[in-house]
Amino acid sequence: MALVCLSDFEAFAKKYLPKITWDYFAAGADDCTTRDENILAYKRICFRPRMLRNVSVVDIRTNILGSEISFPVGIAPTGFHQLAWPDGEKSTARAARAMNTCYIASTYSTCTLEEISVAAPGGLRWFQLYIHRNRAASQQLVQRAEALGFQGLVLTADLPYTGKRRDDVRNGFRLPPHMKVKNLEGAFEVCKMSPLDPSVTWNDIYWLRSLTRMPIIIKGILTREDAELAVRHGVQGIIVSNHGGRQLDEGPATIDALVEVVEAVRGRAEVYVDGGIRKGSDVLKALALGAKCVFIGRPALWGLAYKGEEGLQEVLRILQDEFRLAMALAGCASVSEIGQHLVQFSKL
Amino acid sequence: MALVCLSDFEAFAKKYLPKITWDYFAAGADDCTTRDENILAYKRICFRPRMLRNVSVVDIRTNILGSEISFPVGIAPTGFHQLAWPDGEKSTARAARAMNTCYIASTYSTCTLEEISVAAPGGLRWFQLYIHRNRAASQQLVQRAEALGFQGLVLTADLPYTGKRRDDVRNGFRLPPHMKVKNLEGAFEVCKMSPLDPSVTWNDIYWLRSLTRMPIIIKGILTREDAELAVRHGVQGIIVSNHGGRQLDEGPATIDALVEVVEAVRGRAEVYVDGGIRKGSDVLKALALGAKCVFIGRPALWGLAYKGEEGLQEVLRILQDEFRLAMALAGCASVSEIGQHLVQFSKL
Amino acid sequence: MALVCLSDFEAFAKKYLPKITWDYFAAGADDCTTRDENILAYKRICFRPRMLRNVSVVDIRTNILGSEISFPVGIAPTGFHQLAWPDGEKSTARAARAMNTCYIASTYSTCTLEEISVAAPGGLRWFQLYIHRNRAASQQLVQRAEALGFQGLVLTADLPYTGKRRDDVRNGFRLPPHMKVKNLEGAFEVCKMSPLDPSVTWNDIYWLRSLTRMPIIIKGILTREDAELAVRHGVQGIIVSNHGGRQLDEGPATIDALVEVVEAVRGRAEVYVDGGIRKGSDVLKALALGAKCVFIGRPALWGLAYKGEEGLQEVLRILQDEFRLAMALAGCASVSEIGQHLVQFSKL
Amino acid sequence: MALVCLSDFEAFAKKYLPKITWDYFAAGADDCTTRDENILAYKRICFRPRMLRNVSVVDIRTNILGSEISFPVGIAPTGFHQLAWPDGEKSTARAARAMNTCYIASTYSTCTLEEISVAAPGGLRWFQLYIHRNRAASQQLVQRAEALGFQGLVLTADLPYTGKRRDDVRNGFRLPPHMKVKNLEGAFEVCKMSPLDPSVTWNDIYWLRSLTRMPIIIKGILTREDAELAVRHGVQGIIVSNHGGRQLDEGPATIDALVEVVEAVRGRAEVYVDGGIRKGSDVLKALALGAKCVFIGRPALWGLAYKGEEGLQEVLRILQDEFRLAMALAGCASVSEIGQHLVQFSKL
Repeated sequence: MALVCLSDFEAFAKKYLPKITWDYFAAGADDCTTRDENILAYKRICFRPRMLRNVSVVDIRTNILGSEISFPVGIAPTGFHQLAWPDGEKSTARAARAMNTCYIASTYSTCTLEEISVAAPGGLRWFQLYIHRNRAASQQLVQRAEALGFQGLVLTADLPYTGKRRDDVRNGFRLPPHMKVKNLEGAFEVCKMSPLDPSVTWNDIYWLRSLTRMPIIIKGILTREDAELAVRHGVQGIIVSNHGGRQLDEGPATIDALVEVVEAVRGRAEVYVDGGIRKGSDVLKALALGAKCVFIGRPALWGLAYKGEEGLQEVLRILQDEFRLAMALAGCASVSEIGQHLVQFSKL
Repeated sequence: MALVCLSDFEAFAKKYLPKITWDYFAAGADDCTTRDENILAYKRICFRPRMLRNVSVVDIRTNILGSEISFPVGIAPTGFHQLAWPDGEKSTARAARAMNTCYIASTYSTCTLEEISVAAPGGLRWFQLYIHRNRAASQQLVQRAEALGFQGLVLTADLPYTGKRRDDVRNGFRLPPHMKVKNLEGAFEVCKMSPLDPSVTWNDIYWLRSLTRMPIIIKGILTREDAELAVRHGVQGIIVSNHGGRQLDEGPATIDALVEVVEAVRGRAEVYVDGGIRKGSDVLKALALGAKCVFIGRPALWGLAYKGEEGLQEVLRILQDEFRLAMALAGCASVSEIGQHLVQFSKL
Repeated sequence: MALVCLSDFEAFAKKYLPKITWDYFAAGADDCTTRDENILAYKRICFRPRMLRNVSVVDIRTNILGSEISFPVGIAPTGFHQLAWPDGEKSTARAARAMNTCYIASTYSTCTLEEISVAAPGGLRWFQLYIHRNRAASQQLVQRAEALGFQGLVLTADLPYTGKRRDDVRNGFRLPPHMKVKNLEGAFEVCKMSPLDPSVTWNDIYWLRSLTRMPIIIKGILTREDAELAVRHGVQGIIVSNHGGRQLDEGPATIDALVEVVEAVRGRAEVYVDGGIRKGSDVLKALALGAKCVFIGRPALWGLAYKGEEGLQEVLRILQDEFRLAMALAGCASVSEIGQHLVQFSKL
Repeated sequence: MALVCLSDFEAFAKKYLPKITWDYFAAGADDCTTRDENILAYKRICFRPRMLRNVSVVDIRTNILGSEISFPVGIAPTGFHQLAWPDGEKSTARAARAMNTCYIASTYSTCTLEEISVAAPGGLRWFQLYIHRNRAASQQLVQRAEALGFQGLVLTADLPYTGKRRDDVRNGFRLPPHMKVKNLEGAFEVCKMSPLDPSVTWNDIYWLRSLTRMPIIIKGILTREDAELAVRHGVQGIIVSNHGGRQLDEGPATIDALVEVVEAVRGRAEVYVDGGIRKGSDVLKALALGAKCVFIGRPALWGLAYKGEEGLQEVLRILQDEFRLAMALAGCASVSEIGQHLVQFSKL
């Protein structure tokens, strides 16, 4: 059967991935309310489409932190891509480059940053960092990424501890023995405790700043208060995210939080959003509400699970086509014409 | 089993039409949210019925652009009626004339305008136009329609490109070889690309104006801003429509959009609405909110699928009876007594 | 199995009545939205119960138009009780008298007013009237009722024509040949058309006034405008009713309409409500929102269907016990302590 | 299968308890609307989590009426623990002490207060009182509790009569013959009527005050008016409660009522809440809205039903871990940092 929309890829992945892997990718914290709200919240936003606007050419390109991408959808950082496809993050990197968009490689990759770089030279990539108790290991990672040409450092702020994902507890989820969190080999040995450092505060942004010239993007912001703090601490970008609903359950849907973050930031940093993007029109809604770009997490994994690099390209191509069509049907010929006038929150 | 309401016709059509045809008629864009919202939105409108008003005679006649019709329900333009019934649009034209109402014939008819005219001479008909890249072909069509006695030109504004209807993609929907979009034969040959012109703008209203003396009705308007533009460009009528939810998914339900369009138009043009009409009381709601008349799309196809001309007449007769009864039970003896005081948006 | 609440009686009736009878009693107009909303609307009203108020004695008696009843629940007028139980309205009258409450006998009874009177002498009864085209027949009925000791005349205002109840159409519902609308025998012969007069207006209240000294109660009012008119035309009582959702579908739930009617009436007439009462706490809500008394329709028929007079008494006794308990748990020792402070409309 | 969250314990209890017992524990009044709303209302509250706040140490301890407890979750008073586990309330007392939290022992315990005290000497316990018609029996109970070292007297205000729990009526629920309401043996003999006194009023608080030096906590308050009265009558604590939805159905969810009670009390007494707590994040929400501590009812019974003392400890430990994690993920390092800024009522 042809896969015509992202839900088709989801159904494929659910059917063909081992249950323990599917559960891990699909997991949300506790009751999975926030995971599901990320999607439902998009449904409560209603377009106000405009007619007769000459959409014979629709330009969907945009820029993020100065780099042009073919359309405003990048790959969010998710871990353990080898669970989805043998080549793991190497395939992800190749697909992102082929589609000319940005890939945020996770600290918890099953390939090294070096392998990723070699797999798709010249691709636009950012590196996602968890700060570890072993600060030297984190410093080394940041500097490796910069040396390899990564063009942004994404600090994840919402994981001082791992959220409670019931199925993972029930399944006893762990990485199979033949896979490794390769970027951290060695680092783990000096730190027997949970490697993540829950004492990280805003001051650590200054420490990261001192380590690298890469722009710093903070991921996991959900309130105007934290958006203001992020700007004051000099970040270049904010990813409005609730970690796909995998951390604190029953926080806001990201598209709802986006509105207050954009308002607080007032253009002083770029604002992105992830979570719940399933159609090209979701991308249009996010941009209408002020996002510069969106990032997809689980849909990228479904693409990998389907056919590796090729499958992920198909996912991206579908989103691209749907986004272009949504723009045309809403009366926008370029991303600069997208604005808040295009949407309203529905009565439901 | 007797068919006592429009849903019964829907069930019949779903059961007896080939799946690919049913899917094509039923299709909505993407998740079909707007298609379904068109119906649900009527449920959120609540009557305020008035009692003891002498409804021994209930006059349901009205006028649209100067022509009297037997009740405020016409036939919306939909394509490919031969998929529903062998005689196709000829049956539609006959049923509309028999019931003394208006039929908007689609560019994508499977009968020619000439065949339609011959089938039901003297019937009130408007012609629905898609503007093609081949402007000469469009001009010719408009002038053929006028010459044949069509009394209105309906420009569809919401289809610069076709919406993404997943089932049609999955089914590989296309017209069977023995059917033709007859009005366009010849025109296609000079234009190998998709024949519709996505560069159409408001200025093309002036061009159409220069081609014909028929009143111009614009179909597909959903916002006050576009309603204002339509009036300024001199249209005589506006059909509030989202193409049955087949174009941009997650736009407003038409009955919700009607309110703001009516408000913006302030009587400077007639306003109609299509989408989601399933009962006579829906017609009453639309009129209470300012529509001069409603148009039905899918229910007309179900009627055709049931018994051709006769089936469509039955559908119209049911709506007529239900509309008359709803008027009486709400305390209205003529359409001029219908007003906004009759309805309120419910808390739900 | 013991029947412990009204829903249990409903389930019994659904199981044991002939389908065509069940369908007739259960029927709502069109999509049955209003029928169901009558019940759902009660769910949106939330108590604000008060504690420690000495409820060792709870007095649930009240008065309607000067007559004391044992608790504020009467029997609404419904037709054809012989469909539920062989003795028909005679059983209803006996049960109402036994429980010391008011029974509104319908024009469409399957027993004569005389039979009803003889069955339960001394019971508090009102007579429900449909005004017929044959005004003499209506006049005669009113005067028969008064002569038999009926103490109120209830004019039904919401049935100029019968609502469209799809199942009744499908079933071809009609009274079985061995049952008769006995009150109207003779009257029908002089009037071959539908016997009800859709030309009735507010002025006919004056005509009724001239025929009888019984207080006049108007049934079927749903708006403040009509409530004001009713008061101005001198009625003594108003029953807020949508005919159990059997007439105009998608009007307001009666408990919602009650609020605006009570506000408009400002104590100048007594206000009652029917529709959707299924628990003693529903009665408490209706009284808190200003109703003097409620009337039950379908639940009375379920009681009859279960065990005739005895079954209806059981239904009334359950409501009585539940109402008394709800009062106690909300902190009210008598109906005079029930007020709007006891409820709020919930956020849902 | 591992039990990883409270719902797992619920499923276990439902599976292994006798139906009549399960029904009794699960029962809500009437339609069980309030019972279920207690849970749903938590879903309508949305976190505003804060990031990068140094949560390397999270201190979850708090104090209630001057006693430190290990985390803000105590055991609400529920009856008949021997139905869940042979050792009954003795197990409950041991588990509460082991987890260093407060246990409110019910008048309707199946163990005596003396047995409870001996089972877990030194544990923090409050005694829940129903005032009986036999006031001497109540006085004696209060004084026994104080002598045994109970540190609080909880007066239940919402049970002048028992709510109507349909399943209990259907099942003919009663305590099996080998179990006894041991605290009341003797007292029952002098009072053949229902032993509870529905004439209790606010003045009885003064009477209780005269009997004991224990602080008085009133349980069952749902409105600002009653909260004000409670403070004026000198109580030290208020438990916002609707008796788990077992008394008046369709009153407010407790978490919704908490907001107005806290506002009315303005710090003049401690405010607690029970009903609907199923996750650690629910505890965090209750504290954010002003509760000093929450109490769990049914989940404690599920824990007992699973493995007695050990099972209840597991339930408490899960809540403790979840609460600590929720605090960390919301950015709170101690309960003093929890405040209203952490939550908002969602649009749904």
